[in-house]
Amino acid sequence: MMNDQSRSLAFIGLGIMGAPMAGHLLAAGHHLTIYNRTRAKADDLISRGAKWCSSPVEAARDADVVFICVSDTPDVQKVVMGDGGVLSGARPGLIVVDHSTISPSATREMATALAAKGGFFLDAPVSGGDLGARNATLSIMVGGDEKQFEAVRPLLQCMGKTLTYCGPSGNGQLTKLVNQILVTINNLAVCEALTFAMSSGLDPQKTIAAVGGGAAGSWQLTNLGPKMIAGDFKPGFMIKLQRKDLRLAMEAARERGLDLAAFDLVHRLFEEAGQEGRDNEGTQALFAIVEKSAKQ
Amino acid sequence: MMNDQSRSLAFIGLGIMGAPMAGHLLAAGHHLTIYNRTRAKADDLISRGAKWCSSPVEAARDADVVFICVSDTPDVQKVVMGDGGVLSGARPGLIVVDHSTISPSATREMATALAAKGGFFLDAPVSGGDLGARNATLSIMVGGDEKQFEAVRPLLQCMGKTLTYCGPSGNGQLTKLVNQILVTINNLAVCEALTFAMSSGLDPQKTIAAVGGGAAGSWQLTNLGPKMIAGDFKPGFMIKLQRKDLRLAMEAARERGLDLAAFDLVHRLFEEAGQEGRDNEGTQALFAIVEKSAKQ
Repeated sequence: MMNDQSRSLAFIGLGIMGAPMAGHLLAAGHHLTIYNRTRAKADDLISRGAKWCSSPVEAARDADVVFICVSDTPDVQKVVMGDGGVLSGARPGLIVVDHSTISPSATREMATALAAKGGFFLDAPVSGGDLGARNATLSIMVGGDEKQFEAVRPLLQCMGKTLTYCGPSGNGQLTKLVNQILVTINNLAVCEALTFAMSSGLDPQKTIAAVGGGAAGSWQLTNLGPKMIAGDFKPGFMIKLQRKDLRLAMEAARERGLDLAAFDLVHRLFEEAGQEGRDNEGTQALFAIVEKSAKQ
Repeated sequence: MMNDQSRSLAFIGLGIMGAPMAGHLLAAGHHLTIYNRTRAKADDLISRGAKWCSSPVEAARDADVVFICVSDTPDVQKVVMGDGGVLSGARPGLIVVDHSTISPSATREMATALAAKGGFFLDAPVSGGDLGARNATLSIMVGGDEKQFEAVRPLLQCMGKTLTYCGPSGNGQLTKLVNQILVTINNLAVCEALTFAMSSGLDPQKTIAAVGGGAAGSWQLTNLGPKMIAGDFKPGFMIKLQRKDLRLAMEAARERGLDLAAFDLVHRLFEEAGQEGRDNEGTQALFAIVEKSAKQ
């Protein structure tokens, strides 16, 4: 049924991440049907040969693999379990690959529902941002049945560079949450360190150069530090999306009875950034919140 | 007076960092006089041609440049300002290079005292650990007179790879404190992320591999994460030395009226590690403190 050269694929959710990811699958020669809430975003892919469908179930009808890349848990639940959702037309053997970052427990529920129809649900959240999506250099963290992961590996390789099988259903999402805990606390470290540096009269650019290559180094320092110094808060990865991911991580930590003090702090600071109207700025805008609160 | 091929140098403080650093200067062909509180640590350098002296002032008497590498602010003050200290025999033009990590304000006081005798005091704390000292790959962050920094640059290049001039006296120390703020908060990020991962049943090694190459990546994750997982708390950089540096950074932050919440948190956690008898373990032992407190 699955031939590497011409699988029948469906892609649901053609936003800033999904559109270029779907484009890579199309470019690799696969039959691609697509669905998106807003049709206009599909025009480019349609002009390149993708077939438009008017509902998730219709997009999935003849597909071997259905990819989903939407925003939040309820969005995925609607695409999979809702009226006209993928589940309503799922055939045995169907593999659903969810690239959204959503709740690990909701993920396991959908995997169970799909398994009851003989299908498979892989959680496969990504990191690497819109640039990683466009350049096919995403990191993809996959949970679910390992055999099905191996079956879709060549497809994932069209979109990502680092593929990691993380274990049973939900483990891809949990790994993504680990990623976000690291990303945001490292971000906070840069905010506080630069606040200290600038308050001390140090040249912040020289300071980054002096410390960034050693034990103090991080992706966040190298990539967001210079933007913080310049007051350049253009997104990158938006505060509002980071807030959504932090909410998921906070829920998962609470389910496990974990009290993570630094993560709790950074979660509150991102909420504050949202309340101050910074939702559509990049995550480096956390610097403005930290700098202000440090001086109060 | 200063000939690159055979300067007269003195090195005071031959510990785990100072001994290999002094060795590099000796290997480069300079005349080296040495002093250390405990003479036994000087034996190797003496056998290689260094000249032993019985006090800092005696070691410095004929030196163009005096290097200091001891532990804390009072140790440097004693070496420089104490009875038989460097200052008591300082000639005009003497350059003192202090590689210790100490108080920025005490640094400025010593620079002023030395300037009154026509000498120069450069603060030049290092990062990169004992491995960096042995391999001459240290990062060296220098504050003080820029002309004097340029005069000793060839000597610093014998010991370090990344030399950064950070501005007036004390700015090398302040830059080192920025380094330690980043290092310790990034360390805390790894502790909390791995606590979350392991409590969630994820394979922590796979998790580091999945997230370490992207936006979540840091030196601390790559180098300390695997040791945390393995429960390998051998030093590296000892908790008690990190506590000393954090105390200096906390004092400097308070002098500036800064309230840095994540840094305050990690400072308290390192104090707790000290109280729990972990002073001689490596900084990755913070994981044991964080894991326990997260589950309380």
